Amino acid sequence: MSLINTQVQPFKTQAFHNGKFITVTEESLKGKWSVLIFMPAAFTFNCPTEIEDAADNYAAFQAAGAEVYIVTTDTHFSHKVWHETSPAVGKAKFPLVGDPAHVLSKAFDVLIPEDGLAYRGTFVINPDGVIKTAEIHSNEIARDVAETLRKLKAAQYTAANPGQVCPAKWKEGAKTLTPSLDLVGKI
Amino acid sequence: MSLINTQVQPFKTQAFHNGKFITVTEESLKGKWSVLIFMPAAFTFNCPTEIEDAADNYAAFQAAGAEVYIVTTDTHFSHKVWHETSPAVGKAKFPLVGDPAHVLSKAFDVLIPEDGLAYRGTFVINPDGVIKTAEIHSNEIARDVAETLRKLKAAQYTAANPGQVCPAKWKEGAKTLTPSLDLVGKI
Amino acid sequence: MSLINTQVQPFKTQAFHNGKFITVTEESLKGKWSVLIFMPAAFTFNCPTEIEDAADNYAAFQAAGAEVYIVTTDTHFSHKVWHETSPAVGKAKFPLVGDPAHVLSKAFDVLIPEDGLAYRGTFVINPDGVIKTAEIHSNEIARDVAETLRKLKAAQYTAANPGQVCPAKWKEGAKTLTPSLDLVGKI
Amino acid sequence: MSLINTQVQPFKTQAFHNGKFITVTEESLKGKWSVLIFMPAAFTFNCPTEIEDAADNYAAFQAAGAEVYIVTTDTHFSHKVWHETSPAVGKAKFPLVGDPAHVLSKAFDVLIPEDGLAYRGTFVINPDGVIKTAEIHSNEIARDVAETLRKLKAAQYTAANPGQVCPAKWKEGAKTLTPSLDLVGKI
Amino acid sequence: MSLINTQVQPFKTQAFHNGKFITVTEESLKGKWSVLIFMPAAFTFNCPTEIEDAADNYAAFQAAGAEVYIVTTDTHFSHKVWHETSPAVGKAKFPLVGDPAHVLSKAFDVLIPEDGLAYRGTFVINPDGVIKTAEIHSNEIARDVAETLRKLKAAQYTAANPGQVCPAKWKEGAKTLTPSLDLVGKI
Amino acid sequence: MSLINTQVQPFKTQAFHNGKFITVTEESLKGKWSVLIFMPAAFTFNCPTEIEDAADNYAAFQAAGAEVYIVTTDTHFSHKVWHETSPAVGKAKFPLVGDPAHVLSKAFDVLIPEDGLAYRGTFVINPDGVIKTAEIHSNEIARDVAETLRKLKAAQYTAANPGQVCPAKWKEGAKTLTPSLDLVGKI
Amino acid sequence: MSLINTQVQPFKTQAFHNGKFITVTEESLKGKWSVLIFMPAAFTFNCPTEIEDAADNYAAFQAAGAEVYIVTTDTHFSHKVWHETSPAVGKAKFPLVGDPAHVLSKAFDVLIPEDGLAYRGTFVINPDGVIKTAEIHSNEIARDVAETLRKLKAAQYTAANPGQVCPAKWKEGAKTLTPSLDLVGKI
Amino acid sequence: MSLINTQVQPFKTQAFHNGKFITVTEESLKGKWSVLIFMPAAFTFNCPTEIEDAADNYAAFQAAGAEVYIVTTDTHFSHKVWHETSPAVGKAKFPLVGDPAHVLSKAFDVLIPEDGLAYRGTFVINPDGVIKTAEIHSNEIARDVAETLRKLKAAQYTAANPGQVCPAKWKEGAKTLTPSLDLVGKI
Amino acid sequence: MSLINTQVQPFKTQAFHNGKFITVTEESLKGKWSVLIFMPAAFTFNCPTEIEDAADNYAAFQAAGAEVYIVTTDTHFSHKVWHETSPAVGKAKFPLVGDPAHVLSKAFDVLIPEDGLAYRGTFVINPDGVIKTAEIHSNEIARDVAETLRKLKAAQYTAANPGQVCPAKWKEGAKTLTPSLDLVGKI
Amino acid sequence: MSLINTQVQPFKTQAFHNGKFITVTEESLKGKWSVLIFMPAAFTFNCPTEIEDAADNYAAFQAAGAEVYIVTTDTHFSHKVWHETSPAVGKAKFPLVGDPAHVLSKAFDVLIPEDGLAYRGTFVINPDGVIKTAEIHSNEIARDVAETLRKLKAAQYTAANPGQVCPAKWKEGAKTLTPSLDLVGKI
Repeated sequence: MSLINTQVQPFKTQAFHNGKFITVTEESLKGKWSVLIFMPAAFTFNCPTEIEDAADNYAAFQAAGAEVYIVTTDTHFSHKVWHETSPAVGKAKFPLVGDPAHVLSKAFDVLIPEDGLAYRGTFVINPDGVIKTAEIHSNEIARDVAETLRKLKAAQYTAANPGQVCPAKWKEGAKTLTPSLDLVGKI
Repeated sequence: MSLINTQVQPFKTQAFHNGKFITVTEESLKGKWSVLIFMPAAFTFNCPTEIEDAADNYAAFQAAGAEVYIVTTDTHFSHKVWHETSPAVGKAKFPLVGDPAHVLSKAFDVLIPEDGLAYRGTFVINPDGVIKTAEIHSNEIARDVAETLRKLKAAQYTAANPGQVCPAKWKEGAKTLTPSLDLVGKI
Repeated sequence: MSLINTQVQPFKTQAFHNGKFITVTEESLKGKWSVLIFMPAAFTFNCPTEIEDAADNYAAFQAAGAEVYIVTTDTHFSHKVWHETSPAVGKAKFPLVGDPAHVLSKAFDVLIPEDGLAYRGTFVINPDGVIKTAEIHSNEIARDVAETLRKLKAAQYTAANPGQVCPAKWKEGAKTLTPSLDLVGKI
Repeated sequence: MSLINTQVQPFKTQAFHNGKFITVTEESLKGKWSVLIFMPAAFTFNCPTEIEDAADNYAAFQAAGAEVYIVTTDTHFSHKVWHETSPAVGKAKFPLVGDPAHVLSKAFDVLIPEDGLAYRGTFVINPDGVIKTAEIHSNEIARDVAETLRKLKAAQYTAANPGQVCPAKWKEGAKTLTPSLDLVGKI
Repeated sequence: MSLINTQVQPFKTQAFHNGKFITVTEESLKGKWSVLIFMPAAFTFNCPTEIEDAADNYAAFQAAGAEVYIVTTDTHFSHKVWHETSPAVGKAKFPLVGDPAHVLSKAFDVLIPEDGLAYRGTFVINPDGVIKTAEIHSNEIARDVAETLRKLKAAQYTAANPGQVCPAKWKEGAKTLTPSLDLVGKI
Repeated sequence: MSLINTQVQPFKTQAFHNGKFITVTEESLKGKWSVLIFMPAAFTFNCPTEIEDAADNYAAFQAAGAEVYIVTTDTHFSHKVWHETSPAVGKAKFPLVGDPAHVLSKAFDVLIPEDGLAYRGTFVINPDGVIKTAEIHSNEIARDVAETLRKLKAAQYTAANPGQVCPAKWKEGAKTLTPSLDLVGKI
Repeated sequence: MSLINTQVQPFKTQAFHNGKFITVTEESLKGKWSVLIFMPAAFTFNCPTEIEDAADNYAAFQAAGAEVYIVTTDTHFSHKVWHETSPAVGKAKFPLVGDPAHVLSKAFDVLIPEDGLAYRGTFVINPDGVIKTAEIHSNEIARDVAETLRKLKAAQYTAANPGQVCPAKWKEGAKTLTPSLDLVGKI
Repeated sequence: MSLINTQVQPFKTQAFHNGKFITVTEESLKGKWSVLIFMPAAFTFNCPTEIEDAADNYAAFQAAGAEVYIVTTDTHFSHKVWHETSPAVGKAKFPLVGDPAHVLSKAFDVLIPEDGLAYRGTFVINPDGVIKTAEIHSNEIARDVAETLRKLKAAQYTAANPGQVCPAKWKEGAKTLTPSLDLVGKI
Repeated sequence: MSLINTQVQPFKTQAFHNGKFITVTEESLKGKWSVLIFMPAAFTFNCPTEIEDAADNYAAFQAAGAEVYIVTTDTHFSHKVWHETSPAVGKAKFPLVGDPAHVLSKAFDVLIPEDGLAYRGTFVINPDGVIKTAEIHSNEIARDVAETLRKLKAAQYTAANPGQVCPAKWKEGAKTLTPSLDLVGKI
Repeated sequence: MSLINTQVQPFKTQAFHNGKFITVTEESLKGKWSVLIFMPAAFTFNCPTEIEDAADNYAAFQAAGAEVYIVTTDTHFSHKVWHETSPAVGKAKFPLVGDPAHVLSKAFDVLIPEDGLAYRGTFVINPDGVIKTAEIHSNEIARDVAETLRKLKAAQYTAANPGQVCPAKWKEGAKTLTPSLDLVGKI
């Protein structure tokens, strides 16, 4: 069954965040919008560029009231060292979440079992812990955080305006559609 | 298990394409790149805008040697009428695929069983029939075809250049990374 | 086991009726007689002629206190467009019921699983939601609504007159039989 | 699963036919069109009227190259006596088939298990032993053989003219439809 | 396990008795002695002679306070006609029980499943509904009611005289044996 | 399932016969007619009278080409002593079969498990080892060997004259019936 | 699992004892010591000599407060006759227990299923119904009651003197051992 | 099922015998008679007295062509020390078999699972590896080797003289019985 | 699953300790630290040297508040004799635990099932009955008690100082580490 | 079942070794002795001290012809960075093996499933891939490589001298024992 519109499953793990180790659970995701960004492994090639991309857009995510979480199957110990040694990763002000027990990677169906690593998966989650969008890439293909931000905004807009839907390539401020009987078969 | 890097499962269905009814199977997807775009239902609200967005970018997909397939759980009969009656859908020069038996929607894990409709799912598939990227939205949130085109290009580039990976927000022509021992822990 | 004399199973779906979208459930069928008419697909060949046949006889069904429901595995969106674009279907003043989730088609055992379409099935249902007659055709063979009306009348007459049975080709007003010991072996 | 377009299951039973006892099997049904008419019980009320109705139309069935079979869960012994003692049944020139072992009644899904009797079921079967139409009534509601004859003719016509379909209430000689892309959404 | 000394299982069926249709259940058998006589089929060869034999001895059964039940897998409708048309069966003043649902025939283990008919079985049942004797023949071999009457009398005598047993070929009025330690090994 | 018209199951046991111990198996029963007479226990009350009754009729059984077998769950050792000590049993010239392993008693469904004894069961078996009649009594009710002889004769007659059936209370020399279509419903 | 030190399982059977038939159950064995002596069959060869041996020693068993039970799979009827006809068995003043239902023979694991007879088994049972010794022979090898008496005495002595054990070939009056730490490794 | 007349199951273990460690298997028991004597534990109380008893009779066992095996769940290492330190056990010239893996104790059904020790069991086994007698005591009750020798002799005699059986308390040289029909019921 | 940090499973067995037999259970291990030392068998080769090694270090274990338990699958009887006859084992002042029922050997996963003996396993257990270290050798490789003592001390130190960990080859009195965020990636 | 004396299960993973990434499988372990040292996580507290301890003793392991493998559930990428950034780990000249898929940690039963980390486990493996010793600690208790070296030497010595065993705390050059019957019970 699709993960879309389902609750995030329970989990409990450790993250490195702003110089501290913190515990993150499915409850941590509630009360605000969350963006989960899975990556294959610390210290590798694309991952720092993707973290840097997220860091460069972090102000916009925060302005939208959303938290960003980077997740790999490494430990939070590795994440601390990664943060200290990588100039790109060092820019991250959001939690770097460790998933060595593979609980999160299985729950979001991004684990590659024979490698013990995750695919590049991005998930937008609403303040009730419900998954609204999913995006998963084979690991040689990186993502564009600008598109994630667009999805988040669209998800937030439609959540705030239940009677409307965002048309293709909608960007914040653009026109939306209000479904009605009259529109059926007319667009 | 994730669908990424797995073969498209066998299927056989009917589509409306350029004024004809054609049969589409998993074999039809082989030999060139394919982009499968699932939508919830013909004659509805966002769907025509998404089809129009795809139609506006179709030249670019063709230039990239890729075919586009729109899929809903409607019949190909409905797709013909939709094409005739919707100005937006009428622009489509690519196949409109019917999936009334839900075979494709289940195979790509986008079926909403209680509704008999699909989520908005986009899949980039390589010429061997292997799924390289997946993107699935709750139905009130539309997609941006420009991002799909970017993913396709990145997938094509890395397929053509096995030793390289595309960094975050890579666009055609941008620099790529060549993973090597020396880069580990250095980016 | 035969469906005859069993309760309609629970279902919930959307229909297009008199310019509106309405919800239809097994409860909607209670309190008056119902005639369910399954068809393979909107926008096809025989189906409009069968709907027109039903529409031409609708006054008689209403006079008999019965509602008519057309059911296909299309959506109610398709049904609205069908109603608008087909002169034959446009005559329909009864609900056009969508069954994209296949719940009704399975419950009445008319689904063709490999096609996701229904056989031509007609069911007369009494005000308690109990199925009294069933008629199913291979899809190339259309029905005659006059016969459905005859069955409805016979079902209503025998329901109203528990001690009587309708003989072969009984039509409203014709003589009925009252089973009795004396008649056994004498007809 | 629906019985429509499936093969008649194997069976072997005894019938009374033209003053003799004969064996009837699924092979007996092959090579010509068959009409199977189930009834609840010999010596009862509606059944003779239905047999008489069939007898009155038997010439037309024969002209159409079809055989008629009356089936009840009684023995062929009872059928002989019924034929001898009932003026209505005595008109029957077609086989009266006994099904005391309930094999046919189960195979056509018309058995009422707690009574050991069949529902009023009529089945048109093609010369390959494939069921094309089914009609089943609660036992207080009799059938009209004229409608069965119409179904048979329509089934024969479409079998002989594979590219055509019979529209609603089609009667022999009336116009048929040839499905084509152009007609989709146009009727 | 043997049926002897077990309770008759629950059943409910229709019988023709003295010009009426009556309901017979396992409770009908209680309060007096019963003799159940199964036969293969109405209107056949041996069966009327056996019914006539029972009818000729019916006064004796009644004098013994026992009821006689003839059972076939035919319907009660057939039994009425049989009673009317057969001079032999017409003598029967006891119930002719229909078992078209095969419930009684299975409960007494006399059903021939591939024929849907019963073997010739006779059972003497005491007023508590407990089976005391069983006799079953292949259908070409008829029974002798005089022997059934003898068994009934012996069963009644030993029921009334718990301390005694009837010796071989005991007939009413003959000497019985009172088992005692002294007789062990002495007869 | 009924034992009638089934093969005797394989068994192997010891019997006392004419001053010797012999082995009896299902093969011993083949090639001639057999009558198996089960009794509850050696040295008890009715049993010797029943054996005496069989002994008194033994010449008639032999004249009919049939062998008689008395069976109890006792050993053949007990049977030798019983034969020596009981004047009644001493008359037996047929085998007294021991069934201490309960194989025969279970195969003929006459075992009372909580007692380890058999009910009074009589079985007529044809030269192919097929059971043709069964008769079982609660143990306080003895049998009449004359009736067993009548059954044997009827079974032999119908075996020798396949086209005929013996009517009720048929005795050797009496008229039989030849089933034919004409007789159906006429007796 | 071994039967030693387990409770005798529930049973209920009939025995011949001092000219009467009595009921014996597992409760009959309680309150005093019991010796159960299984034998293959009444009227055979070794069995009478073993019973005579037991009879010759019965006074000693009684002096020891123990009852002796002879058990075979024969009935109590056979046991009465055996007692009357065998000079050896006639000496028995203890119960001759019938086990035709094989309950005891199975409970003590001495049944030969294919024969329905018991092995020669002897069991000493304490007043709580607990089995203390078991001895089982192939049937051609008889037992020596003197040894059974020795076992009984040793079982009684150790029951009465919980702190002591009887050394090899201990006979009544001989020295026993009191286990103690000091004796470990010293005998 | 009883162990009597079954084959010894396969086993492989170590024994101390005449100053050496040897391997003993089920094959070691073949070709001559064997006596297996289980005991609970080395270094305990009764066990040495029983071994001494066996040692004192060993010449007789050898004269009878039989080997004696003492078995405990101890190791062969313990058995060596036991032999060296116990004056009683030191007399043993037969193998002291270790069964620390409990294979033999389970195969002869003498294991006390919660203790890991064996009951006092004695088994006489013929040269084909078939168990002929079994004797098992609760551990506080010792055995008498003289009786084991008697059983062995009786087993050997009856094996050598298939037509004879040993009567109760038979000792070598005493009279035996030859079973015959004439003796049945006469002893 | 690993045994580390799990509770010792329930057991009950006998040991030889300071000239007495005592009962040892999982409760005996609670309230102080325990060291369980499994060995293959009493009276063998390495085992005494290992016991002597333990005995030589016993004062140190006692000073650390820990009890030492030697365990083999032998009985406590063998352990007493071993203690008396082996100069090395005679030094042992700690319990020699018998495990003939294999309960402990299975619970600590050191049983060699085909031999019924244990591997050389050493376990340090805390006063709550939780296993903190495990060490298991193939039996030809002996252990060094000095290392066991070091493990015990380290386990005790870290238990007493929850915030600290012992670095490699830590010995009592050496420096420990206090894990902290600052140390991550810095050692 | 214990892992001792079993084959290492198949695995395939990546390691960082002397500035390169290499593949390690169960075949890599064959042909020489191996020491597998599991640790919980890179960048933590005790682990570097243990690696340093191993590095300080690496010459001795190499002299003994053995390879050392450090294993954690981290990736080989993390191991490279760890080697570069930790002065202690930087001394390691042996492979640092990554086990992110948990295959090795499960195979050696050291995985803590809820953490995704390994316990401190050390295994000595012979050139045939057979595990000879195991040592597992709760993670707060570090190991002493000197003891691992002692075990390796003892394992090698006994492998090279099959007739000998190493006594307690054996160190290279010390005396060994040659098991013999004479030594049983004498040490």
